[in-house]
Amino acid sequence: MTADRNAGPILLDHGSGGALTHRLVAEMVVPAFDNEALARLDDGALVELGGARLAFSTDTYVVEPIFFPGGSIGDLAVNGTVNDLAMCGAAPRCLSVGLIIEEGFERRDLQRILDDMARAARRAGVQVVTGDTKVVPRGAADGIFINTAGIGVVPPGIRVSGHRARPGDAVILSGSIADHGVTVLVRREGLEFDADVRSDSAPLNHLVARMFAAAGGVHVLRDPTRGGVATTLNEIAGQSGVGIDIDEERIPVRPAVAGICELLGVDPLYVANEGKLLACVDPADTDAVLAAMRQDPLGGESVVIGRVTAQHAGRVELRTRIGGRRILDMLSGEQLPRIC
Amino acid sequence: MTADRNAGPILLDHGSGGALTHRLVAEMVVPAFDNEALARLDDGALVELGGARLAFSTDTYVVEPIFFPGGSIGDLAVNGTVNDLAMCGAAPRCLSVGLIIEEGFERRDLQRILDDMARAARRAGVQVVTGDTKVVPRGAADGIFINTAGIGVVPPGIRVSGHRARPGDAVILSGSIADHGVTVLVRREGLEFDADVRSDSAPLNHLVARMFAAAGGVHVLRDPTRGGVATTLNEIAGQSGVGIDIDEERIPVRPAVAGICELLGVDPLYVANEGKLLACVDPADTDAVLAAMRQDPLGGESVVIGRVTAQHAGRVELRTRIGGRRILDMLSGEQLPRIC
Repeated sequence: MTADRNAGPILLDHGSGGALTHRLVAEMVVPAFDNEALARLDDGALVELGGARLAFSTDTYVVEPIFFPGGSIGDLAVNGTVNDLAMCGAAPRCLSVGLIIEEGFERRDLQRILDDMARAARRAGVQVVTGDTKVVPRGAADGIFINTAGIGVVPPGIRVSGHRARPGDAVILSGSIADHGVTVLVRREGLEFDADVRSDSAPLNHLVARMFAAAGGVHVLRDPTRGGVATTLNEIAGQSGVGIDIDEERIPVRPAVAGICELLGVDPLYVANEGKLLACVDPADTDAVLAAMRQDPLGGESVVIGRVTAQHAGRVELRTRIGGRRILDMLSGEQLPRIC
Repeated sequence: MTADRNAGPILLDHGSGGALTHRLVAEMVVPAFDNEALARLDDGALVELGGARLAFSTDTYVVEPIFFPGGSIGDLAVNGTVNDLAMCGAAPRCLSVGLIIEEGFERRDLQRILDDMARAARRAGVQVVTGDTKVVPRGAADGIFINTAGIGVVPPGIRVSGHRARPGDAVILSGSIADHGVTVLVRREGLEFDADVRSDSAPLNHLVARMFAAAGGVHVLRDPTRGGVATTLNEIAGQSGVGIDIDEERIPVRPAVAGICELLGVDPLYVANEGKLLACVDPADTDAVLAAMRQDPLGGESVVIGRVTAQHAGRVELRTRIGGRRILDMLSGEQLPRIC
């Protein structure tokens, strides 16, 4: 098989954020560029430039539809990169924006998206300082795609990474899950649920600043976007070489979201979030960090959902509501294309 | 008309890099994000972060075809952002890569593109430290689009900008023009010219370092990509509030390229380059800068093509081969879509 590793077509699943994405990145991308910063596969890279300790991250947004309850591709593109930087422990400072626009796209929609980006940037306290606009002929793209890249400054003493989870750490989740993915899915499929679901798209940098101010023992920060909480926990378990035990009943899911997931046969643990974070925190600091998070408008429902363990290294185990245990795998297959 | 400014569809011309692109950016993008760094509209932004003086830039690549003589979308995506940083006076250091891949794209082609990117990064001396991969369903994109963003460090004392051209400055061009655009056009249209044309895709940062080492009087650096030399000179004239006089006969165009331009009715002054720069240099330093450039493998044909003047501010005038004078406007209309 090795000879054929790079043959064949790219599948939708390669963009799921789950197992196939990880394999593609591990087999093709990381070897090509071969350097330590990239190989760490955190949400962004830590680099020292001109004496400054910086985080650098990028994400491309292809969400469909481009407008949905609670947000749009515009604020998503800002919040997503702000959050990736915050998950590196950095204070996000400036963003670049790369637009790919399909010929015929409505200028009014573009203006609305730019306004959403600007509003999100103000809320996060970052500046959009540079950009690029490409227009491609009708049919060569679907409406609009947006790339953002961002730079943040990592304060002295801050050191978080997916590699730093330790047995005994509490696993904290900042609020209810699956809101973003379910909202996009419902809107895209034109489903007529009489439910008030909306994306949780939001910038997490202010919440993270509170956590750092409260205590030093924040080891890992991750935002569970594509692939959801289950995939992100598996990434942490793999990078840190630890096991993670999670209690299903402690994971907040809004009733409307849970209902739609059940109807559609979708597991909320695998659905994308755009304004939530997972943290692995030293047990001695857990109470202080939790208390600080709950004072933030975006962290009011923060809760300990499990614990890092020296058992079953690399694996995530879920204690189900009915008391059983099962292995929580990484997302395999494409659950929801173009969710962000 | 003002009320309707934001109505109507986006046209291909909005992505040309010429007059309509400038209007779109000035009317919609700059006002939305309202900050000084973006409003300068240089090839990248200068920012001070954590005590470091940095340049930050981004570009998205949608070139079609993705492989062409002399390069591919891969090395273009690296060289383009490396060059934007170099044009800010920065030493490029690290890049991000955002991939949008159409479902069904061949993995072998992806590998070839990634290898081209890696080779280009090594040549420029930069590292790809972070990235993101999105896959969209068949038909939602055309093959592959690549965004790169980059960070460079601006050495102490270096200060170049499109706003710094001064009357008397020599205008230097680093070599022959229109090679990239003509190559892509010929390949895309399947034209059967018996001509050895190839893209000039190359990283200009080492050439720029030689220029800075030679003399202090480098005021402006720009790479004439979309919209070509004519559009870039108009940008400089507009930003600096100066006039520019150019001698057509001094501008190097390879005979094969000139021949194809003539056959196709395309003016090489408006065709994209991906490995050339324009510089405005203090007259006292011109000889030293030229000599340094000619020692670089990418600057052997460097030549003074004209001069900055206090006359006809904001306008570029061309002395034609037959001795006449005409105004050289910014590109209007889309000459070559998806050229980079």
